[in-house]
This record gives sequence, C-alpha cells and structure tokens, in this order.
Amino acid sequence: MRAYHRGFDQLRPVTLTRDYLKHPDGSVLIEAGETKIICTAMIEDKVPPFLKGTGKGWITSEYGMLPGSTQARKIRESTRGHIEGRTQEIQRIIGRTLRSVVDISALGERTIWIDCDVIQADGGTRTASITGSFVALAIAINKLFEKKKIERFPISNLVAAVSVGIVDGQIMLDLCYDEDARAQVDMNIAMTDDGRFVEVQGTGEAAPFSRRQMDELINLADKGIQELMALQIDCLGEIADKIGGRK
Amino acid sequence: MRAYHRGFDQLRPVTLTRDYLKHPDGSVLIEAGETKIICTAMIEDKVPPFLKGTGKGWITSEYGMLPGSTQARKIRESTRGHIEGRTQEIQRIIGRTLRSVVDISALGERTIWIDCDVIQADGGTRTASITGSFVALAIAINKLFEKKKIERFPISNLVAAVSVGIVDGQIMLDLCYDEDARAQVDMNIAMTDDGRFVEVQGTGEAAPFSRRQMDELINLADKGIQELMALQIDCLGEIADKIGGRK
Amino acid sequence: MRAYHRGFDQLRPVTLTRDYLKHPDGSVLIEAGETKIICTAMIEDKVPPFLKGTGKGWITSEYGMLPGSTQARKIRESTRGHIEGRTQEIQRIIGRTLRSVVDISALGERTIWIDCDVIQADGGTRTASITGSFVALAIAINKLFEKKKIERFPISNLVAAVSVGIVDGQIMLDLCYDEDARAQVDMNIAMTDDGRFVEVQGTGEAAPFSRRQMDELINLADKGIQELMALQIDCLGEIADKIGGRK
Amino acid sequence: MRAYHRGFDQLRPVTLTRDYLKHPDGSVLIEAGETKIICTAMIEDKVPPFLKGTGKGWITSEYGMLPGSTQARKIRESTRGHIEGRTQEIQRIIGRTLRSVVDISALGERTIWIDCDVIQADGGTRTASITGSFVALAIAINKLFEKKKIERFPISNLVAAVSVGIVDGQIMLDLCYDEDARAQVDMNIAMTDDGRFVEVQGTGEAAPFSRRQMDELINLADKGIQELMALQIDCLGEIADKIGGRK
Amino acid sequence: MRAYHRGFDQLRPVTLTRDYLKHPDGSVLIEAGETKIICTAMIEDKVPPFLKGTGKGWITSEYGMLPGSTQARKIRESTRGHIEGRTQEIQRIIGRTLRSVVDISALGERTIWIDCDVIQADGGTRTASITGSFVALAIAINKLFEKKKIERFPISNLVAAVSVGIVDGQIMLDLCYDEDARAQVDMNIAMTDDGRFVEVQGTGEAAPFSRRQMDELINLADKGIQELMALQIDCLGEIADKIGGRK
Amino acid sequence: MRAYHRGFDQLRPVTLTRDYLKHPDGSVLIEAGETKIICTAMIEDKVPPFLKGTGKGWITSEYGMLPGSTQARKIRESTRGHIEGRTQEIQRIIGRTLRSVVDISALGERTIWIDCDVIQADGGTRTASITGSFVALAIAINKLFEKKKIERFPISNLVAAVSVGIVDGQIMLDLCYDEDARAQVDMNIAMTDDGRFVEVQGTGEAAPFSRRQMDELINLADKGIQELMALQIDCLGEIADKIGGRK
Repeated sequence: MRAYHRGFDQLRPVTLTRDYLKHPDGSVLIEAGETKIICTAMIEDKVPPFLKGTGKGWITSEYGMLPGSTQARKIRESTRGHIEGRTQEIQRIIGRTLRSVVDISALGERTIWIDCDVIQADGGTRTASITGSFVALAIAINKLFEKKKIERFPISNLVAAVSVGIVDGQIMLDLCYDEDARAQVDMNIAMTDDGRFVEVQGTGEAAPFSRRQMDELINLADKGIQELMALQIDCLGEIADKIGGRK
Repeated sequence: MRAYHRGFDQLRPVTLTRDYLKHPDGSVLIEAGETKIICTAMIEDKVPPFLKGTGKGWITSEYGMLPGSTQARKIRESTRGHIEGRTQEIQRIIGRTLRSVVDISALGERTIWIDCDVIQADGGTRTASITGSFVALAIAINKLFEKKKIERFPISNLVAAVSVGIVDGQIMLDLCYDEDARAQVDMNIAMTDDGRFVEVQGTGEAAPFSRRQMDELINLADKGIQELMALQIDCLGEIADKIGGRK
Repeated sequence: MRAYHRGFDQLRPVTLTRDYLKHPDGSVLIEAGETKIICTAMIEDKVPPFLKGTGKGWITSEYGMLPGSTQARKIRESTRGHIEGRTQEIQRIIGRTLRSVVDISALGERTIWIDCDVIQADGGTRTASITGSFVALAIAINKLFEKKKIERFPISNLVAAVSVGIVDGQIMLDLCYDEDARAQVDMNIAMTDDGRFVEVQGTGEAAPFSRRQMDELINLADKGIQELMALQIDCLGEIADKIGGRK
Repeated sequence: MRAYHRGFDQLRPVTLTRDYLKHPDGSVLIEAGETKIICTAMIEDKVPPFLKGTGKGWITSEYGMLPGSTQARKIRESTRGHIEGRTQEIQRIIGRTLRSVVDISALGERTIWIDCDVIQADGGTRTASITGSFVALAIAINKLFEKKKIERFPISNLVAAVSVGIVDGQIMLDLCYDEDARAQVDMNIAMTDDGRFVEVQGTGEAAPFSRRQMDELINLADKGIQELMALQIDCLGEIADKIGGRK
Repeated sequence: MRAYHRGFDQLRPVTLTRDYLKHPDGSVLIEAGETKIICTAMIEDKVPPFLKGTGKGWITSEYGMLPGSTQARKIRESTRGHIEGRTQEIQRIIGRTLRSVVDISALGERTIWIDCDVIQADGGTRTASITGSFVALAIAINKLFEKKKIERFPISNLVAAVSVGIVDGQIMLDLCYDEDARAQVDMNIAMTDDGRFVEVQGTGEAAPFSRRQMDELINLADKGIQELMALQIDCLGEIADKIGGRK
Repeated sequence: MRAYHRGFDQLRPVTLTRDYLKHPDGSVLIEAGETKIICTAMIEDKVPPFLKGTGKGWITSEYGMLPGSTQARKIRESTRGHIEGRTQEIQRIIGRTLRSVVDISALGERTIWIDCDVIQADGGTRTASITGSFVALAIAINKLFEKKKIERFPISNLVAAVSVGIVDGQIMLDLCYDEDARAQVDMNIAMTDDGRFVEVQGTGEAAPFSRRQMDELINLADKGIQELMALQIDCLGEIADKIGGRK
C-alpha cells in the first residue's frame, strides 16, 4: 500500500498557499504530500543582453534545496562552489515550460525571475516546482496587468507537471522519494490545459521501456495533470479567467 | 510610532515553531515580526580534520537567504560564485555563540550542522538565527542524549541574541529593516541566561557612540534577551530543564 | 529541399571511423553530415567513492565543443569558469544511456570514461555522441574481455540515438543546425536494438505538441535508429556478435 | 612576565614608518612588537556602481597575510581559491572604521583603496591594521588636499584600535599571539580621539564574560588607544593639525 | 634508433591540411609524427578594452588538449576548475610569436582568436601549434585582405617553431614524447624566415647546459625550422607570396 | 643616462638582507634598485602525491605582488579569483631553477616552499626572486643539515639570474621598469657558478633578434650574474663554503 492510502493512479494530497511571502510579486507554497516548495516570481525592469532593444521580456528560473530539506544534509551549492548538473537541468526545464505558455513579446523589456526553493523534499520536486511556479508567475503577471504596465494578459494556457514511473513493474502516478529511488523508469511530463505536451522526459536507465508502457505512463500523467490544474484554477481565482481560451 | 504599536524598548511579536521539518534532528521556525527563519540542526558522525582522534565534537553553522526573502531579489551565492563577507561573518558568530554554551568534549566525534535559512527578511536575521538555532540545537542534542549516545547533557546555559541601535538619536530594541537602514549605531548582543556576554558587536560607522550610550544599549539588550529566553524555555519544554543550572 | 537532397524522413550521410586515436582504449570519429565528433572510451582502474568495495564498475561521460566547431567561436568552458547547463545535461544523458545496456556489476571496479568532443557542429551533436560513443565503449569493453580481465561480455543491447522535430509544421528526421534553430518541437530519442526506449526527451517551448504528433515523431525516430544500428554493427564487426541476443 | 618586560596594562613597543613604499599615495609600516604590517592608501578616480553620479567618494579595504608571516606557512588565498571568513571580517571592519571619521561627500567621486599586508604576524594584526592604515589614509587625503583636488580636509577625528582580553583570568592590553591563543575573552575596540566608540567586538567563545569584566576591558582599551594616538600624531606631523577639532 | 628511422637531426614526417574545418576563418590540421593538432583562426569585430579606440587589432591564443589525446586520460581544465600553468605558458608564447610578425595596427579593431586543440599528443605540441597556427592565421588574414576589409597585407614574415634537446647526452631535433620525458635539456625555438629569433626558451632543470651546447641546439633548430617553412609555403600557396619580402 | 648613473652594462645597487623575518626557515629581503622582494623558504614534512614513498623531497615556489607594489594598484589574485598566466610562468621558472642545483633525493620526504613576495616593483622581479630565494633556500637547507636531519649538503652550485634586453636599439643589463616597458627584446637568464645555463628565456615580440644580438645579450647576462653571485656568497657567509665544489 502507498502512503496516504492512495492507489497507483492517485496523486498525493496537494495544497497551494497563495501569497506565502510578502516581498515577491507572486508567491506560492506548494505542498505535495511531504514535499514542500516555496515558489516566487519577482519582476525586474531589464532583460538579458540578447533581448536588449527587442521590446521583448524574459522568464528565467532558479531552483535550490535547503540543507535541511533532505534525509542526509544537502551541501549548499554556494559552499560546494559549483551548481550541480541536476540543478541546472531542473532550472532549464522550469524556464522552458513557463515560457511555452506566455507571449514574452507582450511583457515589455522585463525579466520575471522564478525561484523554486525546496523546504522539504520527498520526491517530485521538479514537477511540483513547475505546477507551483506557474501560479506564482500568473499572480505576478496579473499585477503588471492590473497596474496597466502591459496591455494584454499574455498567458495562453495553464501549465502543470507531474511524475510517473514504473516501480517493481507497476506503473504509478506521482512518485514519492522511496518509490522514485527504486523506479526502473522515471518520466516527467508537463502539459497545457488543452492536452498538449510541453515537456516529455523519460529515462529507463535501470530498464528500457516499451512503446505500450510509454503510452500507459502518458495516460496516467494526463489524468494527474488535469487534477492539478483544478487546484491551480482554484488558487488563482479570477486570475484564471484571464488565461487565454478560459474567459 | 513603530510597527506593531510597540515602544522603543519592546520586542516584535516572536514565535518559535518546533519540529518544523521532518528530516533534521532538530528544527525550528522562528518568526520575529515579518522576519522568518528556518533553523535546523543535523548530526553527522564525523568531525573536521583538526579534531580527528581527539574524541571531541564540533558545532558549525551556515546561513543563507532565499532569493524571495528580500525586497529586491537576493542573488543566490551559488550563482554569484562566492560567499559574501556578511554571510561569513554571520555564520561565524552563530557557530561561536552556540559553542560557548556546549561542552563539545561531551559530544563524541560528531559534527552538528546548524543551518539558518531566511525565508523572509525584515531586520534582525542574525540575532533571530542565534535565538532559533539554539532551540534546534538543544532538540538535536536531546535526541543523542535520549538514545544514550552521549552520557551527559552537555549544554550549560541558554543563549539568545537581540539587536539594539540608535535611530534618529533614539535608543531602540529589536530593529526592523527600515529602522536598521537608517540607524547611526547598530549593536548585536548575545547573552547567556546568567547574564553574561557571549558576543558584543557594536558599530558606529555613521556616528561613533559614547560610553553612556553603550551602557544604555546593553541594558536594553539585556531586557530583550530575557524575554526571548522565556520563549525558548516554553518551546523546549522539559528539555529546558536539562540545561545546566536549571533542573 | 533539405541539404544532401534528402527527404523529411531521411538521415544525413553517416560514417563511423574506428580506432581514430591511438591512446584511448576505444575511439571513433562519427560524422553525420557536417557534424563531426571524436568519441573515446578510456578505462581507469578505480571507481567513484559511492561504488568502492562493491565490486561494480561505472561508466561516466564528458562532452565538449572545440572553439572552432561553431559559426561564432565557442568560448571554452575552462575560460568561462563553469560548465554550462546544456553541457551538463548532455553529459548526463550520454552516461545514463550507455549504462542502460551494460551490466556494470560485470565490469569489476573500473570506470570507463567516455569523452565526446565536437570538432565541427551542425546539429544533432548529443544524439551523434550517443551513437558514436556506444561503439567506442564496445571496443574498449571488448579489450577487457579479450584480455580476460572480465569474465563475460556485459553489453546486452546496441543503443543509438537520433533527433526528430517539427520545423515549419513539418515532421522531420535528423535535424541539422538551421532546421533545429527554427524548430517548434525538438525531440531526442535513444533506443535499444529490440525497440525499447532508453531516453525520450521532447520539448515544445515554441509550441506545445499533440499526442498524434508525438506518435509520428517517435515512429520516425525508430526508423532512423534502425539505420544507425546497421552502421554500428558494420563498424563493430565481430564485436557486434558478442552483444547480448545477437550471437 | 610578558615579553618586553611589560605589565598587563602596557602596549608592546610600537613604531610607525611613514612613506615606506614609493608608489602608493600614502604608506606606513606599522610594527607592534613582532607584528609588522604594510598599510597603503591608493586613490582611484572612480567609485563603485552604487555611488556613481552621487558626487561622493568611497573608502574600501583589503587585508592579506604573506605565506611567511606565520609560524606554519599561511596558504595564499589565491591558491586556496576563496577568501576566508576571517579575512572578510577584518576587511569589513577596517573599511567601516576609517569611513566613520571621513566625510566621504567631500572626497569627490574617488575610491581610496586601503591595503593592509601582514609581513610578520604576532597577534593584534586587525587592530594594528586600523591604527596604521588611518595614518596612510590621512597622508593620501592630504595629497588630494594639497593639490587642491578637494576643497576641505574631510577627516573629523583620529581613529585607532587595540585588542584587550582575559588570559588565564587576567585582564590584559594588546595581546601577542601566544596570549591570544589561550584567551578566554577577546575584544577589539576602535575609538576616536574624543573617546567615542567606532567598533566594539567582544567574544567569549571559551567563557562568557560579565558586565564588570567588560567595563574593565574597555577602560584598558581606552588607555592603550590614547597612547597609540600620540604616536599617530607624531608620525603625521602637521597633517595631524588639519584633522577636525585639532587645529 | 629513433622512430620513423630518422637521424638525430631529422624532423618527424609533417603534414599540414588546410581548411580542415568549415566554420573558422582559417583552419589547419598539423600532424608531426603522431602529434595531431587542429589550429583555427577566427575573427571577431572587437578588441580587448586596452585597445578600444586605438584603431589597432589584436591576436590572442588559446590551447587545449582533448581528454583522449594522452596516454593517461587528460582531465578537462573545465572540470578541474582552473587553467594549468603549463597551458597558460603555451597560450602566451603562441600569441606573442604570432604578433611578432603581424602589424596589428593594420588589422583595424579586430581580434583574431587562435585556437590550438591537441587531438593526439606525442611531444612537441607547443611548437607544432605555432607552426600550424601561423598558417591558419595567414589564411584568415588573407580573407580580410581579399574582401578589402584591410588595406595592406600585414604579415611581415613567416614564423615557425621546433623543439630541440639533449637526450642521454645526445643533441636531437624535434623530440617525441618518450625522448622529451627523459631529456636533460629541453629548448623551444621560434624563428622568422630571415633567421631571427622570436622566442628562445631553454631549460636545463635536469642538467644545466654549456654555451657550446646551446650553440649546437640553436643550429639544429634553425635547420628544422627552415624545413618547416618550406611546408608552410607549400600549404599557403599564393598567400605565401603576399608575406613581406617574399613577393 | 640610466638611473643610479649606471652604464648599459651595470647592475643597479643590490643588497641582500638575511633573516628578514622570524618565522620562516630561511628568509631574505632582496633590493635591486627600487625593486624589493621578500623571499622565504619554509620546510614542510611531506611531499606532493607523485613523490610519496620515494624518499625524495621537493622544492616548489609561489610568487605574488602586493597591491601597493606597483604604480597602478595591483588587484589581488585572491580577489580576481584566478592566478594570472604571468604569475604561473614566474612560479614555474623559480621552482625549476632552484631544483636544478639541489639533489632532491638527499632532502628526505620534505617540501621546501619558496615564497617570493614583491613589496615594491621596478622591473626584474622574476630574476631578483631567483637570486634572493636561492639564498633563502640555502639558509633553510643549512638548518636541516646543522640539525643532522639530512646527511649531506645537497646543493651543488650557486644559481642567480638577471634580465638583459634591447632598448631603443641598445643592449642593456638589468632593466628597470621604464626600460623594460619599451624594450624590443627581453631576456631572462639563470646560470650556475660554473657558467652553465639553467634557464634562457628570450622574447622578441616587438622585434625579432639576430644571432649576434643574442650572443651579446648572453655575454652581458654572464657578467651581471657573476656580480650577483659575489653578493650571494657574501650574504651566505660560511654556508657558501658548503656548496658543491666551493669548500
């Protein structure tokens, strides 16, 4: 039996706490079972060099884990002196996913910094970071829109993400740390609210997987993502109505 | 008038939430007004090279601020590529302060890692880190003691810290960020429960201060620290009784 | 019309030159159109700390691009002072893919270092690195086997990789740089010779993609990978016969 | 008996050698017993970004120890790859102390770089650095003043610093290395010539200290600092007369 | 007997392959026996800060070794985190040597980046890098000249380099790795086509050398360099005719 | 006319001050005109990994410049974050030169650290570092010998170094900074007391030089080095008699 008495096709209990911090333009605490992540969005009035003078904006993301977030103390990357490959991979995927549903040409020359800081880790931190930071981003963008700093609401779709995998031969939704550690196949999927894929990343290091298995994994992820989007809509309230195709 | 309708000699509302995270051996969320810090203590069964073979333990501390904890986004030290002088100064003072009340020769060859991560900053983060991490440390040490891994309870005194300063010519207790930013004199004081000083750090960069002013600042700090220790005792419950001279 | 007069479902001309360098245990020059990569495998008689004493071996990979390999000079990562996220991502995927078809418990406590150095880049460097370095790896492992340093031939399957994508609305196999730069969807797929997936990484930053599009992309990758494996078998000669399920 | 036949309330012999180097705008060799430090002040015609366009100047400080300055060879921080916390702490305190007696708004947009390089270390390097670099700074500022690059002489007070401590239960002035290494309490104090405090940094890691002990330590420091200022005045000659409140 | 049946005064077989890569402005593969180096020249339309506004150009060089180029795998400098002293020395000597025969005031404000990447190492990589990169540089400069971006052909002389040494008491030309590793004296010499010296670097760490030995070493180097220049002229074709004093 | 009323073939006034610092095993202040360098030798009872278990010792060197040693403030390499190529080159040449006259197999498993720190720079710092650090090294080795920690005195020859160059067409000995900055040819030569060469490094970046010019430069260096060795012998006193071939 899985923790929280859940079946193989069920998510852990998920909550989204809006406006968790006072300084950022948008902030959310996402809790998925024991996994807890602070997601923030902060707007800066300048863009990276490659966008200067284009009138376009940018969305970029950083990810970190507190030393006390893991079973064995996580050494700070500042102490270690370099940013790990895993961290970089996660940062890049969060940034790409969020940019896929925002028209950055409507942001003006602004950068929106997304920070996902894991307070407590129990598997699924990269997908929960995406699901939570989308909400923080929408709140921050809405402030720009309400203050009339941008002319139109530039988010076309909701986006959320979930992990799926094969553990002891069993296909499962939303793996916690113990399940993830012994998974043969591990897949992270990000989708929009019209059922299209933004990111599909599957790896079968411990055991390559068949076409049929991949299809089942994707079906399960699709189900989970729809449930997460219901929570995002709930949390965003009327902001959700402004997202393209929803009003 | 100061925020929270407080007088010049009053602390902000302070709360200590015990066992805030599940993985560390001890953890506390300290909130002092809008300042919020996660303090954790994690035990590792080895010591730094200079203590190997001595039978003694060690207590060391690291400090960090989340990017979203400040008004303008705080750049990660891992991205910046080096640890700032301010961070190093704070880390060293936390470590020294905690070691001053623990008999490290009774810890065995263990390192206790103290991590103070600022979730939200509004002044006084270094002193709140000391006050909070003392509690996390006592909880962790108590676990060693309860599991009979150490023979005696090695903490001799409570220790807590507070800031005082001179703002617009007025002596004040527990400065919030706005007060701190325009202070002429800034002093951080850590004391034990028998009224002795562990750290006294005062700086009058904007205006040197007189002996009489220093005396008043210290009196005010003493008052504030006594109040903080009442909260520490409350939070620690029966663990507090094991601390030297208290049972 | 695509370069080399090829159709949307055709690979660029690919050649594999075996034993390209004299020092490594295995080496291959892979050329896919204008993309040229030196892949080497070098055996070291020790393993990373987490495997010490387990009797198991390890396979790890590093990737680099020569400054002259790209249109605009590529700044050296040693000069830049850190390894880029993209490089780390590629290194990790090459390592995972190769390990998925090797029984590392049969290697003894040895590390096989895979290095993929791009001499000239024209798209598809990460997938060509996988295809080429599998051959270099098999040659190096065969040397261990021929010298009777390992008891059985530990490779279970061929593995190769290819890119597919959607460019101007058209699904295409094996994108060159110009196609990749304007692709809406970019997918890299690694498969074994029995048609199972080791890595599936698809991203639709510029335009999310539908389930039907994903299915077509995967079909096309499957076709391309089968052709690449014919070349691998050719290049490996009798070594190919020792790979699990092939003799 | 202490070295140099001195009593507990006596300084070591101190000498200040003016214009020790030819390139800097101001330079002093300070010798306090066996401790020898080269202090230099160099003027640069630009300011850090946060002061650009304000018309204000800046004073900043760096500190280093030669490899041969200590009993066991001191590893270079350039080789070590990072600047130690202790170094950063010292650099920050020197800069703050000097700025406290200079009206930086009268400097124009110039940075004065203070460098304190320890040639030989025998305790008290941070306080000797302050005492010596104040003199180097005054010489450099006087050059600006003599060349009429600044309109008024912007130094309001002399500033000097000394260490005090409790060693084997005895309160002592100006600790040498052997005394410092076994001190229970260690305090560094910087004062102006009108008896006000600029920095008070006391730490009782080995044994917290009482209010009465702190008072005695401060009295002793006050006495030592007055003696050091007599030497500063001697060394500065007529420049000393230009310092605020002295002419 | 030396490899390739050569006498003590003979070069290894040397080949220069022009236009080895498609992206750089000039590129050459130089092979000297088993030593193989890709030399490229890439033009950038800006100069380092110290030349801005002077109208002058710059030539700078970087050098690297592939991990698979050496017997024991060469750790990447990007992984190691710093650039080795040996690498820096070689980079500086290549840059100085090439600049000695080019009138940089005729280049306009352009930087020519020279990259020498060792594909396979068997001794003499620094001198082969000079000989090969001169050809790559001349090709790149000729492109500027043919496109009329510069008014006159700014190369005054051919330059090439070779190693000489004393091995087991015997003076030898063009040392391969095994010879170099047991040499008592090691000398690298770069000369122009009119017999003048650009660089002379001799070291007798294992055994200081006499004036007479130095004279013999230089005579031998002179002979070798003349042969290398014949190959450079051959490879450059009509570009060689444009080099000062040759048309 | 050159400074110090010297002719083209004359050294600047040179002094060697023995035992300049108290902590190192050997120390010398060398002054050559305005150039002043502290050279120290410190013995450590271990060797680098490549010598462990061989019974041999090692001599290694580091070089640095104080920020106040140069006209424009020299940025610390610890602040800059990396060690410059020039510094590495100098460190390597000092180490090689000293090792060439010491039988490291007679040192036991010890490392002698040579540190050359430039207090004031006016040209010729690398050659003065060699001349001065040889003396510091001999003093340190003599201590080992006097304490009977090594069986025989392992230094075979004196070694010293000087710069020569061509400035405005004139061949000159011992260039000061102003001469060096406008030199066409710059050559640094280290020789033993029996007239053999340890290092010859000549560069004609600004103008290649002829064979005849090189001969004259070497003659001049030889003359200067003999004068420097007389000073070394004077400074070393009876230690000089123990150096091979001198007693």
